[in-house]
Amino acid sequence: MESLRSGYLFPEISKRELEHTRKHPHAKLIRLGVGDTTQPIPDIITSAMAKQVYALSTVQGYRGYGAEQGNLELRMAIAERFYKGMGVKGDEVFVSDGAQCDISRLQMLLGSNVTVAVQDPSFPAYVDSSVIVGQSGKLNEETGKYSKIVYMNCEPENNFFPDLSRTPRTDIIFFCSPNNPTGSAASRQQLKQLVDFAKANGSIIIYDSAYSAYISDNSPRSIFEIPGANEVAIEVSSFSKFAGFTGVRLGWTVVPEELRYSNGHPVMKDFDRIVCTCFNGASNIAQAGGLACLSPDGFQAVSCVVNHYKENAKILAETFDSIGLKVYGGKNSPYVWVHFPGSSSLNVFNEILERTHIVTIPGKGFGPAGEEYIRLSAFGHRECILEAASRLQNFYK
Amino acid sequence: MESLRSGYLFPEISKRELEHTRKHPHAKLIRLGVGDTTQPIPDIITSAMAKQVYALSTVQGYRGYGAEQGNLELRMAIAERFYKGMGVKGDEVFVSDGAQCDISRLQMLLGSNVTVAVQDPSFPAYVDSSVIVGQSGKLNEETGKYSKIVYMNCEPENNFFPDLSRTPRTDIIFFCSPNNPTGSAASRQQLKQLVDFAKANGSIIIYDSAYSAYISDNSPRSIFEIPGANEVAIEVSSFSKFAGFTGVRLGWTVVPEELRYSNGHPVMKDFDRIVCTCFNGASNIAQAGGLACLSPDGFQAVSCVVNHYKENAKILAETFDSIGLKVYGGKNSPYVWVHFPGSSSLNVFNEILERTHIVTIPGKGFGPAGEEYIRLSAFGHRECILEAASRLQNFYK
Repeated sequence: MESLRSGYLFPEISKRELEHTRKHPHAKLIRLGVGDTTQPIPDIITSAMAKQVYALSTVQGYRGYGAEQGNLELRMAIAERFYKGMGVKGDEVFVSDGAQCDISRLQMLLGSNVTVAVQDPSFPAYVDSSVIVGQSGKLNEETGKYSKIVYMNCEPENNFFPDLSRTPRTDIIFFCSPNNPTGSAASRQQLKQLVDFAKANGSIIIYDSAYSAYISDNSPRSIFEIPGANEVAIEVSSFSKFAGFTGVRLGWTVVPEELRYSNGHPVMKDFDRIVCTCFNGASNIAQAGGLACLSPDGFQAVSCVVNHYKENAKILAETFDSIGLKVYGGKNSPYVWVHFPGSSSLNVFNEILERTHIVTIPGKGFGPAGEEYIRLSAFGHRECILEAASRLQNFYK
Repeated sequence: MESLRSGYLFPEISKRELEHTRKHPHAKLIRLGVGDTTQPIPDIITSAMAKQVYALSTVQGYRGYGAEQGNLELRMAIAERFYKGMGVKGDEVFVSDGAQCDISRLQMLLGSNVTVAVQDPSFPAYVDSSVIVGQSGKLNEETGKYSKIVYMNCEPENNFFPDLSRTPRTDIIFFCSPNNPTGSAASRQQLKQLVDFAKANGSIIIYDSAYSAYISDNSPRSIFEIPGANEVAIEVSSFSKFAGFTGVRLGWTVVPEELRYSNGHPVMKDFDRIVCTCFNGASNIAQAGGLACLSPDGFQAVSCVVNHYKENAKILAETFDSIGLKVYGGKNSPYVWVHFPGSSSLNVFNEILERTHIVTIPGKGFGPAGEEYIRLSAFGHRECILEAASRLQNFYK
């Protein structure tokens, strides 16, 4: 824990945001920092949750503990909706209260004696949870890297996909696609390389597909689209950004039966044991909502909300493009990743906050390779996004 | 994980239950094994949850991520309702998705390099999570004990409170009161001893008060009723058995500001970091329900349900008493703990299942000291409890 206490950027960002609000109490702050959903959940889904809630007040409808792994109907619906034709079975799907929570349960499963690789930049929970369970080694304050973690550089030069021929072998590879923060989705060819690499090295890929609903091109939406991935990969995913369930809390993890330790023992059995010991199942109300999201009408309704955020992302990306800055992401992701060559990301963050009253995230918060970038979230009401675009245009013109 | 794979009783119990159902397809099985709530949640609470659900479909009412630590209003209400006059502040209350989940998050915080003591018998999650994080050492198949865990014997001879003068020092002491499975609540005098013991040894008590709503006498309902406990104790608790939220998922943990590591660093700060990294807050719907439970009318309504289960426990305890067996618990707890001197708990479990079609739990599942006992849960509809009582009377007459 001590190792984690230093060098944490996010409280620093909150502090600066707070100071800014005090200094400019009348400015209308636009928050495009944390990727937090803003649009109402479609009625068809909240109606299903309300029905479940009211049932809990009846003798016939009351339910206590559900299965720790989730309701079988929901597990089957997830397998059918997201993994059709990929051979994923309902009992390989473990319903959770969110991807971040399952990442830490996976870390409990793995323990301290494994080596870990992460994309650089990436969602901080992979590294932070590695530090907590004792996998990381010490932080080098100068490089911003932990000694035992392998950082796989993802930059425009390599098309945001690591050079695997120069990546050392690790037991675990965390891989997020579409990536948070860069917004880049790995292609089929790239994921095939990744699966081959893991297979050759006896590594396990922990694949985070929390943003797969944002993919617009033909990039795979799941690692299990790649043949053979079920022998080397676990997939963590979420209803948060797909259905606006950030506050409702629902996600899932797929652990394929074919994934084995080197001694032949199925990883799935141990994960099942972790889930039963460290978790008691997702809220049955959230699960009822999840099931409604996967019905044909529910799925269409949440897809409309996703399209709203995608349009927002396009507006933000076009804004920076028109300013003449290099902008990545946005197309397959609700995040845009803007390059400020030669600048410190914290300075850019400060400047944008100070001059436009827009909160972003300095890229450094996602790893050393994010130093010259800032991330903007496209989650927001349309008028806020348009107002943000206009302020940025004015500031940079 | 390998250490955990062997010696797990609960799957064995499920297997036997399933076999029994196959063998006797027409018998009406009564499940008094797992402590799972059965009574509907009062309308006042589900109405509040439904209101929150519907608000999520409106622009004004939609909320995304809440604070990882929980809504401040709920944190304050918990402090006010359960810790009035004990000096617990709202920001020392961390809202969770249940006690079991927070126990494993506490284990992540503690890591593998701590020594641990548990009551024997006790709720298996303490030992199992210790095994998972690597604190336990190896299992001795003969004694049923892990080499590095200190088992604090709790039997009728010591009034279910460990002889602390003979208990070795450990970094952590898990202590559940009212205890699951024995149903015994520690007295004020006993808890004072425990706090003094922890203080003298520089230990941290992780106090599980998940069943405190069932206390009928003047036993403390919280460890923080003991002066000075805020320097040595963390309290884990839950809405599951207090409000029938086993499927809704809501709990809390109190980490007092005054609790420090030997180097002076507040434990609370590290737990906050764990919660922010490994958890994303409890469902906002469940939290709205929790808040409703703590209103005067809500509290009265859930107390009626608790009284229903307490009356069930009394019926079960009286049944065994009239049979002439020694029965413990029931008074301050929804569990009764029945002694079968000289018998194996698995044999008693099998016999009761075979002859009365009632599922119980063999005491051995809670630790070696449970070997001559079985636990019965008083959660059930009244007619099931009465039917169970009648079958047991007939069988043992």
